[in-house]
Amino acid sequence: MAELARTNRSRVKRLPKRGGYDFETVAAILDAGFLCHVGYVIEGDPYVTPTSYWREGDHVYWHGSSVSRMLRTLEAGTQACLTVAHIDGLVLARSGFHHSINYRSVMLFGRAHVVESPVDKERALQNFVERLYPGRWSELRPVTRKELNATTVLHMKIDEGAAKVRTGPPIDDAEDYDLPIWAGVVPVRMRVEPPVPDERLKAGVPVPEYLSDLAHVGLKR
Amino acid sequence: MAELARTNRSRVKRLPKRGGYDFETVAAILDAGFLCHVGYVIEGDPYVTPTSYWREGDHVYWHGSSVSRMLRTLEAGTQACLTVAHIDGLVLARSGFHHSINYRSVMLFGRAHVVESPVDKERALQNFVERLYPGRWSELRPVTRKELNATTVLHMKIDEGAAKVRTGPPIDDAEDYDLPIWAGVVPVRMRVEPPVPDERLKAGVPVPEYLSDLAHVGLKR
Repeated sequence: MAELARTNRSRVKRLPKRGGYDFETVAAILDAGFLCHVGYVIEGDPYVTPTSYWREGDHVYWHGSSVSRMLRTLEAGTQACLTVAHIDGLVLARSGFHHSINYRSVMLFGRAHVVESPVDKERALQNFVERLYPGRWSELRPVTRKELNATTVLHMKIDEGAAKVRTGPPIDDAEDYDLPIWAGVVPVRMRVEPPVPDERLKAGVPVPEYLSDLAHVGLKR
Repeated sequence: MAELARTNRSRVKRLPKRGGYDFETVAAILDAGFLCHVGYVIEGDPYVTPTSYWREGDHVYWHGSSVSRMLRTLEAGTQACLTVAHIDGLVLARSGFHHSINYRSVMLFGRAHVVESPVDKERALQNFVERLYPGRWSELRPVTRKELNATTVLHMKIDEGAAKVRTGPPIDDAEDYDLPIWAGVVPVRMRVEPPVPDERLKAGVPVPEYLSDLAHVGLKR
């Protein structure tokens, strides 16, 4: 897919030059994280639930308890808006007005669908775990049928939405550049600290290799 | 205010023991960050917009361009859901099912109101800048009337909503603790890197003292 649909809801209206509809751009932003915010409507009111997500091809997936209000609402086929935002820096300008944040964000619109078959559901959950921790799935105690039944997996096609990105230094008014005010960017990054083993961990179990670098999901040491 | 209202939309239904309605708990989570996701409804469809926010007493504030669709929708008095989520760790359990994330989150519900008077608007924006960068406002080129007119500031009372928090190690099924599978927590934290001065910064302007520690908005060195 080359481009996402520019609809009335997906078109970037404010600062349109920050917007992008290229599938690869959207996919790269999705792949650089694991936390999204899903919006949905119940009886006319908006709800925003933070949850983890993963991408497979041109679909985005998320999951949760089968009794979750968010999942039960969305599996009924109502519209969803799934937003991902990565903060890259604080932008300090010479006027308050031009202060900003460097970020990479994606908004996706559509209807979610349930992964119905247990086989597909297990494969999706495997993909989720493997994306975060490559090699871990086969180490784990296998998933049970009861656990699968207690889990709902949703997916949504990535075909309507947009990326919005800000990078670079502050953009000040021309006459403000002469002012002796500090201006620049404070880079921000999600970082991991050394893994903390569970107190009940069996003796001799080493920290897995796949925890040594989580850069593939946007987490740096 | 002691407690937020537990309504049908604010009550934590899934894993209610993770929920909290205490104002101080909610305020502490809000104060530990600066990025929220605001949900709103246009013609029945949900939208989720990432934006920065700040708290003043029992109100949460956010702002943006006066022509922003998000702000224009909300200033008309429709319902909003403002969600904040801080990721604290990846939780690795001995089964896929019990993998989790440690987080602190807040969902707030209500109607937003516009800060109408220019004086109040400027004071609110000053509070926003000062919360991120204590001492910076008086260093900046003063805000102009035109800039104030181009900015909308909204606020919403913090009186309906909930905090939801997960902390601690994985909770595995009793029989799984004997398995030789690595389990534990990978702590995650938003960190700042050294400030990058603007290329056009006037010679001799030092990095401000207030950038040496941004822990007050959840950012560690």
